[in-house]
Amino acid sequence: MLKIQTVLALSFLFVASYASVQDFCVADLSKPDTPSGFPCKDAKKVSVSDFVFAGLGGVGNTSNIIKAAVTPAFTAQFPGVNGLGISIARLDLAVGGVIPMHTHPGGSELLLVIQGTICAGFVSSSANKVYFKTLNKGDIMVFPQGLLHFQINSGKGPAIAFVSFSSPVPGLQITDFALFANDLPTELVVATTFLDAAQVKKLKGVLGGSG
Amino acid sequence: MLKIQTVLALSFLFVASYASVQDFCVADLSKPDTPSGFPCKDAKKVSVSDFVFAGLGGVGNTSNIIKAAVTPAFTAQFPGVNGLGISIARLDLAVGGVIPMHTHPGGSELLLVIQGTICAGFVSSSANKVYFKTLNKGDIMVFPQGLLHFQINSGKGPAIAFVSFSSPVPGLQITDFALFANDLPTELVVATTFLDAAQVKKLKGVLGGSG
Amino acid sequence: MLKIQTVLALSFLFVASYASVQDFCVADLSKPDTPSGFPCKDAKKVSVSDFVFAGLGGVGNTSNIIKAAVTPAFTAQFPGVNGLGISIARLDLAVGGVIPMHTHPGGSELLLVIQGTICAGFVSSSANKVYFKTLNKGDIMVFPQGLLHFQINSGKGPAIAFVSFSSPVPGLQITDFALFANDLPTELVVATTFLDAAQVKKLKGVLGGSG
Amino acid sequence: MLKIQTVLALSFLFVASYASVQDFCVADLSKPDTPSGFPCKDAKKVSVSDFVFAGLGGVGNTSNIIKAAVTPAFTAQFPGVNGLGISIARLDLAVGGVIPMHTHPGGSELLLVIQGTICAGFVSSSANKVYFKTLNKGDIMVFPQGLLHFQINSGKGPAIAFVSFSSPVPGLQITDFALFANDLPTELVVATTFLDAAQVKKLKGVLGGSG
Amino acid sequence: MLKIQTVLALSFLFVASYASVQDFCVADLSKPDTPSGFPCKDAKKVSVSDFVFAGLGGVGNTSNIIKAAVTPAFTAQFPGVNGLGISIARLDLAVGGVIPMHTHPGGSELLLVIQGTICAGFVSSSANKVYFKTLNKGDIMVFPQGLLHFQINSGKGPAIAFVSFSSPVPGLQITDFALFANDLPTELVVATTFLDAAQVKKLKGVLGGSG
Amino acid sequence: MLKIQTVLALSFLFVASYASVQDFCVADLSKPDTPSGFPCKDAKKVSVSDFVFAGLGGVGNTSNIIKAAVTPAFTAQFPGVNGLGISIARLDLAVGGVIPMHTHPGGSELLLVIQGTICAGFVSSSANKVYFKTLNKGDIMVFPQGLLHFQINSGKGPAIAFVSFSSPVPGLQITDFALFANDLPTELVVATTFLDAAQVKKLKGVLGGSG
Repeated sequence: MLKIQTVLALSFLFVASYASVQDFCVADLSKPDTPSGFPCKDAKKVSVSDFVFAGLGGVGNTSNIIKAAVTPAFTAQFPGVNGLGISIARLDLAVGGVIPMHTHPGGSELLLVIQGTICAGFVSSSANKVYFKTLNKGDIMVFPQGLLHFQINSGKGPAIAFVSFSSPVPGLQITDFALFANDLPTELVVATTFLDAAQVKKLKGVLGGSG
Repeated sequence: MLKIQTVLALSFLFVASYASVQDFCVADLSKPDTPSGFPCKDAKKVSVSDFVFAGLGGVGNTSNIIKAAVTPAFTAQFPGVNGLGISIARLDLAVGGVIPMHTHPGGSELLLVIQGTICAGFVSSSANKVYFKTLNKGDIMVFPQGLLHFQINSGKGPAIAFVSFSSPVPGLQITDFALFANDLPTELVVATTFLDAAQVKKLKGVLGGSG
Repeated sequence: MLKIQTVLALSFLFVASYASVQDFCVADLSKPDTPSGFPCKDAKKVSVSDFVFAGLGGVGNTSNIIKAAVTPAFTAQFPGVNGLGISIARLDLAVGGVIPMHTHPGGSELLLVIQGTICAGFVSSSANKVYFKTLNKGDIMVFPQGLLHFQINSGKGPAIAFVSFSSPVPGLQITDFALFANDLPTELVVATTFLDAAQVKKLKGVLGGSG
Repeated sequence: MLKIQTVLALSFLFVASYASVQDFCVADLSKPDTPSGFPCKDAKKVSVSDFVFAGLGGVGNTSNIIKAAVTPAFTAQFPGVNGLGISIARLDLAVGGVIPMHTHPGGSELLLVIQGTICAGFVSSSANKVYFKTLNKGDIMVFPQGLLHFQINSGKGPAIAFVSFSSPVPGLQITDFALFANDLPTELVVATTFLDAAQVKKLKGVLGGSG
Repeated sequence: MLKIQTVLALSFLFVASYASVQDFCVADLSKPDTPSGFPCKDAKKVSVSDFVFAGLGGVGNTSNIIKAAVTPAFTAQFPGVNGLGISIARLDLAVGGVIPMHTHPGGSELLLVIQGTICAGFVSSSANKVYFKTLNKGDIMVFPQGLLHFQINSGKGPAIAFVSFSSPVPGLQITDFALFANDLPTELVVATTFLDAAQVKKLKGVLGGSG
Repeated sequence: MLKIQTVLALSFLFVASYASVQDFCVADLSKPDTPSGFPCKDAKKVSVSDFVFAGLGGVGNTSNIIKAAVTPAFTAQFPGVNGLGISIARLDLAVGGVIPMHTHPGGSELLLVIQGTICAGFVSSSANKVYFKTLNKGDIMVFPQGLLHFQINSGKGPAIAFVSFSSPVPGLQITDFALFANDLPTELVVATTFLDAAQVKKLKGVLGGSG
């Protein structure tokens, strides 16, 4: 009953009509960004590898001051998420490891504990109330957009977590780095944080800041 | 120099001003939904437990036809994600397990393989091109919003994955269930899918549909 | 009282200030797409013809397997809708014509029957409930974003309808084409749809698929 | 191979999990509106009639000053479009009929001529450039959000058009009604429009305004 | 305890990972606009001067027919607001000055009176109701998106106000300019506004229109 | 030619059709919030006073530790901005006054200096670069969403500024208050900020925190 020739004609008709309609927009990082994300890679050059990322499989290097590592799969690392409203990162926390107080200016975060025990929390802006809890393997916790939050390995072994974001470019502003790892003059830091100058200078020294 | 009394006064000033500004909107599921999500639970009754969910820690029951289980943490199960543009679900796939062809009408998906080997893919609407690949532990793959996709355990042991979504209510439309698990008349299914009537009736029987 | 010279000066002032503010963004299809749509055509080269499209006036070619035709006016065909959150398509259904089960990943649809009688419906993802009805001339029906739906000419003469979308690039994924009109291996189709292999091979043959 | 009992169990599992996830949000007009639209009608009480509207099938009453009628299917008339980003209205223009200069504050418009000949146009805010054209049956024209536009029956018989909007609540502000059909004092109208007071008073008289 | 070397290594790690993630998108006005705004200026070339604008400090030239001046800081004048959802403009109104009836197609407006007395108002589209009030120094008033509104200096000295917008490109369509300052044929203006032809021709003459 | 009776009929027709379409959504703060804002006040009870706010006219009380005051006109204080994507606040800075390091989780900010001299700046998350400048009367500066920023009176007299936001509920999280004005245990603050415990305890004492 079904005639192959007419069907092929039909198939061609549909395909031709939609040739330049994209279901996705893999980032072409070589072009300038826009407020909605990067321009799209030519659909004809897109392959499945644009939608797959293997960079989160390995353990991050936690041989550092925070005994922790953040390995992101944002647009810059994983262009396939461009324009799709989602991204992810891997957290590795050695024993005693800490992801310091930070915010994501561009999105909410959902934490999933894969291994170990993590104490995580955030501070609301309304009344500065703190919400924190110790999480075990399989627990999830959500951190509303833009609020200060942290994660600490509160267990006796290494911990691993994955954090998903409601944006392909959530950003990451670690408070300590923002305050102490640049050339913001000490007097301005003191004036805007009430911290003692000695404390500011000490952390500037540690984190590589100046001024 | 810093006088506690004046500071407390300041603190009170700020707090009072922002008393009804919420940083989050934990769903009050007892009230009617809106296009942007559920009305917010009274902030005074919100505690950290509203932002934490332990329901994904256990292995889903895979003793079923698809040898797989989907355990969601969407607004209905985890009211803390309401309005935050993100949610998550756990996939358990026994040996031979399959998450059948389906779409999420309301969001993009990001798959993370935690254990085992999964063959996953999606079909673009432009030219009906298929993008699929075998993923190992630690690999991630993104599925653009609304497109048909699937996951198959292609390994020799059980597989576990977590899928994040760019919406707290991504929805889930499994094609087979949509076509065969309801009272859509067989003649309409045949007419709109080109499937043979016998095939339709067989699957209606299996999936509990009628008509 | 009104002095022409000062008014012209005023007029010039306003015009100059807003010279590069665009009220619209006609797509320049020669440039790469972005997540929010195509870059804008130079406003100085935009004319009324960019906002008018005559391509829906003729009857679509229904000499094909589905006895139906879809003629879209999406961004690719009608660049004037770029960035405006709306588009339209014409449906022609000969006697017995069918628009097969499909979804629009990127938008909701509003159907308007202009001629004839059409049986239209969609399947919700919640409980897989079916909503379908026979529509006459002048009736409208709305199909929520991303859900499977169909249209069948249930009358005795040709039917015409226009379908508007809440996006200039709604996309169109016809389930049959997504499953059978490409090189997705038969074993994967069988595994993810529960269809019999013979059925899959038959439809792959008809729709030009392989594998 | 497929065992009905386990399948039914599976079916129940999925259904139960998503019971309160809605794919749509039919407006409950008895409840207060929100910025994103009306609260949703209880999904259990939703039927196909909530998604179908027959009110655009008849000819509008054009026995009035503008010899035209606008029959809307916005959320207030057609609650099924609530939250879906789309709506539609029917325009009837008798010979000489006119839809006067107006804007839709909340959405872009796509006009489709079904019968007759219509001269339609809009004015851009940038340089006040006018884009207008005579449209015939089957032609479409798009009017970017918020800009002044009009439609005139420029043919020798009645004309019919359907206008789709990128919002379920596009609004409609007819400039003449906004200026002359209320109690805005004549002196304020004169001061803000440069019109002669006599002209303002004349139109206030005609359109039922006062002051 | 804190070792500078490892910290620096950490610092580098974070910085490198986020090198191409932008927190902002200063407009590169030399490139074509997109629906979401202009492409971003290279972040390495961005300096504080991109986020500061001094152009609103001076008094606008009110030696014109409306005895008023609008000085905008939209994307075209202040590229730093590109993509940030906000912009501002300064209003200067000499004695008797008027900002004529107008709309902003792309955003809501918040007026702040800095000096003098201003009578401001808007017309809702629902029932054409007028909301207007005399405002003094320090008062604010909000004008919902897309609705006709006006400002008149109702005091005895010059008035100054600043108007913020919910978009970096709110647009500005002054009704008089849209109707009379272009080549829209007089007969079309008459037909779509009910104004007398003499009135139309008079204002076309004043505002530099033709036709 | 224009007959009053038919026009009134027309007027009634339009009004009736749009009776429940709102152009605005003044917050009814007595009802629960939703992710898109508060439910709307009954339009029949809305008056011009809902769109006007006089609370920013007076000088804020700067007799406190920061010698500064923030007086907001967000939805909680000014329900007319609900759903409109904009709000505003007044900043008063006495000599030596400081608005400490803070973020607005929900929106971008545009600062306008009305009186005095203000040193303002923000820190980008990418590379922790600081952008700051001394601003004079009439200068504006924009702070991208979610990034740490501050304002300091750097002049010899009191300073006044108004800050507009791209959201009616931008939120305000002052870093010091978030870290020290609550019961977040000192050891957690130390662990997540690298600050010395003595410093933390000192500021907790000053700002009324415990733990």
